[in-house]
Amino acid sequence: MNNINKVTFIGFGLINSSLAQVFKSKSLAKQICAFSRREETRDKITKLNIVDIIYDDVVNSVKNADLIVLGIPVGAMENIISEIASSLKSGAIITDVGSIKKNIMKSILSKLPNDVYFVPGHPIAGTENSGPEAGFAELFKGRWCILTPDKNTSKIALETVKFIWQEAGMQVAIMDAEYHDRVLAITSHIPHLVAFSIVGTVTELEDQLKTEVIKYSAGGFRDFTRIAASDPIMWRDVFLNNSDAVLEMLGRFIEDLTALQKSIRWQDGESLEKLFTKTREIRKSIISEEQD
Amino acid sequence: MNNINKVTFIGFGLINSSLAQVFKSKSLAKQICAFSRREETRDKITKLNIVDIIYDDVVNSVKNADLIVLGIPVGAMENIISEIASSLKSGAIITDVGSIKKNIMKSILSKLPNDVYFVPGHPIAGTENSGPEAGFAELFKGRWCILTPDKNTSKIALETVKFIWQEAGMQVAIMDAEYHDRVLAITSHIPHLVAFSIVGTVTELEDQLKTEVIKYSAGGFRDFTRIAASDPIMWRDVFLNNSDAVLEMLGRFIEDLTALQKSIRWQDGESLEKLFTKTREIRKSIISEEQD
Repeated sequence: MNNINKVTFIGFGLINSSLAQVFKSKSLAKQICAFSRREETRDKITKLNIVDIIYDDVVNSVKNADLIVLGIPVGAMENIISEIASSLKSGAIITDVGSIKKNIMKSILSKLPNDVYFVPGHPIAGTENSGPEAGFAELFKGRWCILTPDKNTSKIALETVKFIWQEAGMQVAIMDAEYHDRVLAITSHIPHLVAFSIVGTVTELEDQLKTEVIKYSAGGFRDFTRIAASDPIMWRDVFLNNSDAVLEMLGRFIEDLTALQKSIRWQDGESLEKLFTKTREIRKSIISEEQD
Repeated sequence: MNNINKVTFIGFGLINSSLAQVFKSKSLAKQICAFSRREETRDKITKLNIVDIIYDDVVNSVKNADLIVLGIPVGAMENIISEIASSLKSGAIITDVGSIKKNIMKSILSKLPNDVYFVPGHPIAGTENSGPEAGFAELFKGRWCILTPDKNTSKIALETVKFIWQEAGMQVAIMDAEYHDRVLAITSHIPHLVAFSIVGTVTELEDQLKTEVIKYSAGGFRDFTRIAASDPIMWRDVFLNNSDAVLEMLGRFIEDLTALQKSIRWQDGESLEKLFTKTREIRKSIISEEQD
């Protein structure tokens, strides 16, 4: 793999802030740089004391950078790439941490010069908190990072990005971009959509009932509110950019939910029990997967 | 409140096992008894070493009991009450721990003699584990217990049951039974139904995709599988017995989810962002409620 003299983090939310802390603690680059358009964010980055140079100009921030990590909402990536494309160093590696891959690859690859290498990535890690101050180096430990190279992706660039995520403590898997988006639609996008939706339903309840719901939210609803507190812009862009896979899975889910609705209306206890017994098995598979 | 010489736990799942451990550690009754129809469960209770007499005959188990705690699926309560009604001691107090209250009250009250007091209760606490061995005395600490007496409920019996849950570390709230069922439909029953449903959708995926989904289930789906691993019989009975409130809320939820589906199909980012920003507020209300 290549040596990294200068790494530039574009955007400094939970993921990029955490990864920058890994770079710092493991000395993975000689110079750690960051760009953020917002003064408030730059002030927060300053206080963290992990970044050597903080830029307010994205073009300057990428000059001479060996590695650039895009940690911004998926919907903002194309414009940023257009801005920086002609200022990138020959041989520079760009990677991203977006939750969807197919659309990003298409729009980024079409804008990059041939002597710059793009490695699409998705570290599956997160909390409900966002912003530079939410970051911590241990965020990635023991989790999966999925990279979705295509047949033109540089092998050396791929190895470099793989090495970095492994240094962060992740297991790295290689997957087709479209397949990644289908898997994530189920494991992450639909659960988030459902949580956003159900918490949204509650915001529209009459005030008294809403107060009681918040007070007694110990059970399942509490977990849903945690999920539904995730970053709004990031999630808006996920749904807009992975709409095919999300709509396909959402269709299946609404079908199944409607069947359940019918079972309840017709007091069909047998069907309910059968389903609830089956869903226990999946939990067991996940627990045993983790213990492997 | 009355002194408790003999308490009988009917059923010995997570809640009753945990409450029995509170009785033991705080010496709340002179004699702790339990009934279970299943030999396997009785063997597990024996091993826990917290119960003085374990019965395989429910009629014998309640004889001379001052307090009886029903910790069985809601659908089984009416039959048990029919069996024991004529063997109850005059002045005995019966309480239950079921997640729905209106239907239970109706069926239990119609079967009890006049000199026995029923106090409907619902300790809002749980884990995804079930069975006697899943119990632990700290399960209830800091959580809410809702009691739903009606105008005929004995004040002394109510105070006794309230005292017990407070001894277990719970805050006790008094609520109308029907209102309880509406609140719980939202905070607990619908989230569970949705989790069961989405995990059910995954069980029907083609094998390869299902394997990947289980492997990369770090995000929201993992939380859903935990919820969907809850006791099947208990949840079947919840949905059958709280169908009115569940169907009302499910109707609202499916409406909202369908609107979201439309926003995604039409790439309406503004609506998505607006909803996702609103749902963050509810989380803040819950966190601040907990810090009060």
